[in-house]
Amino acid sequence: MSSEDLPEVARHWTLDPEVIFLNHGSFGACPRPVLAAQSRFRERMESQPVRFLQRELEHELDLARIELSRFLGADPEGLAFVSNATTGVNTVLRSLEFEPGDRILTTDQAYNACKNALDYVAERSSAELLIVPLPFPLNSVEEVSAAILAAADERTKLALIDHITSPTGLVLPMSAIVDGLEERGVDCLVDGAHAPGMVDLNLNELGAAYYTGNCHKWLCAPKGSAFLHVRADRREGFRPLVISHGANSPREDRSRYLLESGWTGTSDPSAWLSIPKALEFMSSLFPGGWSELKTRNRELVLEGRRRICEALEIDAPCPDQMIGSLAAVPLDAAQRGPEPLFEDPLQVRLREHHRIEVPIMHWPAPPSRLLRISAQVYNAEWQYERLAAALRQKS
Amino acid sequence: MSSEDLPEVARHWTLDPEVIFLNHGSFGACPRPVLAAQSRFRERMESQPVRFLQRELEHELDLARIELSRFLGADPEGLAFVSNATTGVNTVLRSLEFEPGDRILTTDQAYNACKNALDYVAERSSAELLIVPLPFPLNSVEEVSAAILAAADERTKLALIDHITSPTGLVLPMSAIVDGLEERGVDCLVDGAHAPGMVDLNLNELGAAYYTGNCHKWLCAPKGSAFLHVRADRREGFRPLVISHGANSPREDRSRYLLESGWTGTSDPSAWLSIPKALEFMSSLFPGGWSELKTRNRELVLEGRRRICEALEIDAPCPDQMIGSLAAVPLDAAQRGPEPLFEDPLQVRLREHHRIEVPIMHWPAPPSRLLRISAQVYNAEWQYERLAAALRQKS
Repeated sequence: MSSEDLPEVARHWTLDPEVIFLNHGSFGACPRPVLAAQSRFRERMESQPVRFLQRELEHELDLARIELSRFLGADPEGLAFVSNATTGVNTVLRSLEFEPGDRILTTDQAYNACKNALDYVAERSSAELLIVPLPFPLNSVEEVSAAILAAADERTKLALIDHITSPTGLVLPMSAIVDGLEERGVDCLVDGAHAPGMVDLNLNELGAAYYTGNCHKWLCAPKGSAFLHVRADRREGFRPLVISHGANSPREDRSRYLLESGWTGTSDPSAWLSIPKALEFMSSLFPGGWSELKTRNRELVLEGRRRICEALEIDAPCPDQMIGSLAAVPLDAAQRGPEPLFEDPLQVRLREHHRIEVPIMHWPAPPSRLLRISAQVYNAEWQYERLAAALRQKS
Repeated sequence: MSSEDLPEVARHWTLDPEVIFLNHGSFGACPRPVLAAQSRFRERMESQPVRFLQRELEHELDLARIELSRFLGADPEGLAFVSNATTGVNTVLRSLEFEPGDRILTTDQAYNACKNALDYVAERSSAELLIVPLPFPLNSVEEVSAAILAAADERTKLALIDHITSPTGLVLPMSAIVDGLEERGVDCLVDGAHAPGMVDLNLNELGAAYYTGNCHKWLCAPKGSAFLHVRADRREGFRPLVISHGANSPREDRSRYLLESGWTGTSDPSAWLSIPKALEFMSSLFPGGWSELKTRNRELVLEGRRRICEALEIDAPCPDQMIGSLAAVPLDAAQRGPEPLFEDPLQVRLREHHRIEVPIMHWPAPPSRLLRISAQVYNAEWQYERLAAALRQKS
């Protein structure tokens, strides 16, 4: 099997045909028609920068914001573009003010970058950070919501919860978690870095106080496209990371929240503007649109996981219902190599000997090493079989 | 005269030939070879996102950082890329901690976005913001440094001073200001939004605690390329706006400052990576390199200002020595139109009837309206004459 045996739709990507690319999850990959749309926005910007950035951009961003809001079931008045979900998380954490004694809750599967942001704001304000351990492997989705909700108390001001966990690829029961936290008076900041394009979303129904997600991962928009959604009752006084002209604009035709978040200094907005093209292109790939695409990716990653578990002679580490288009399997614990340039030797071997790009995550608690596969429309079953065969080899 | 009568080097830009573009200052304009270099980086990124962003990017960013540091006379260990100077200013202001009673000093010609950032941090920390009025028109450069230094006292913790003022295009005597502030124990944050590529820079000699500048303006790098330079003795404990993986990296091969500022989440780094190409390309345009380019732009903007002052029958509002490649002239005061969608009627007339893109700034104090011209290598004398002729017409 070779790159010629990839799905027909793979031709829309510019991915190196020499690499078996099983890591869509880390940074996504953007198809040609979306990159072309982005190039057209850039050309337009450079043909008259003042006309584009000062007189046309706001309207173009509105269109992109409205299209994305429709896809997300979100309120366009609450949606702001950011560069990535980590920035979305940092924006919320640094807009809020915590008092000494306040508690912020998260899980041990929260994304490392966002845990660092929590450490920073907690330390600066003398708030307390509570990290709830989540089980993995696990047998039921309820184990997760129960662990999180049991940790929320009246001192808890905010919970940062991943919609899909990064190291383990678990789709968490977000609705139950947000509802349970709300009942306990706790605002939830959902890190949906992997959610858009992987799972069905309706942010208005979900009702989280804050929701951030990437568009460059599973929506296949260009790198640097992400959003932050703030619920209507949390917009007043909300401030972006970069305070710019919106703060004292005399305009009354849009909210302070939109004025401030809509312009945070000169940058290249073409990634955000290309989101509608990504939404449209990806939904055009199969007759059943996004729904068929998500189902296909899920079936493919489950089949990939099945083959890898078979090769490793282990059981699936979580129920199928917790899988979207990422799946992690535990590996035997391995010695960590010498810091700081450590890369897992198996990851290096897979890449260098088998041309397979797949991440191996290290984990503080047992099982300590996880291999995580992704499935996007350009992937094929034989690629996971190739990985399974490589894992069967002992070196 | 038409676009055919532009300088030979103008062919390197993709600017709309139907527009007389006298506003390089607002957003810059990027020439074809630099845009092509940026496209190549993007293609490389999309051909294998994990290889590029995880294994190659740091080295590529190092090369760009070292090249830019050489151009700026800066310490590469203190240089971080940001999207724009406003972000650089916000980063410093939100990394520092101010106490009630602390004083922050700036001028009434500071950039509006940055004044808003000052208001935000001052209000949040109950610090006091002192805004020093600068004279305009003015007769000598010493009037500026005297006004600023007279306002610094022992309560002053930080001064935010523009290297080149945005509304009036004045090159301020930065060395005297920084030295004077240092003598008074005041750290200076220089907003050099317009400085790189317009005036000679040696950040190490200047010795400001913090210096931020744009590369997409007068260096003609792609939009979204800017830097923040932090002096060695201010790096410890300095934190970026977006806290990410660098905060707990076990690596010891680079400083915490570089680890944290070098990665703030997935985005498109191609604008930063194209800075070396912009430096090289712009310096290749004339036999005398950057020095000749800066001299030519300065002579052109002074000639443009002369013609406009003649048309308006006014004297030059500042000494020639305070001019780089921006120049502002006062207009008669005009009534402001109805907010919030006000645009100066003269600016609209110039654009719609004369196809001239030039900004008219409104100013709280008299003379209340300023017209600001820019000169970049693609501009020609006849374009300013066209503007002068249009200004002579009464409607």
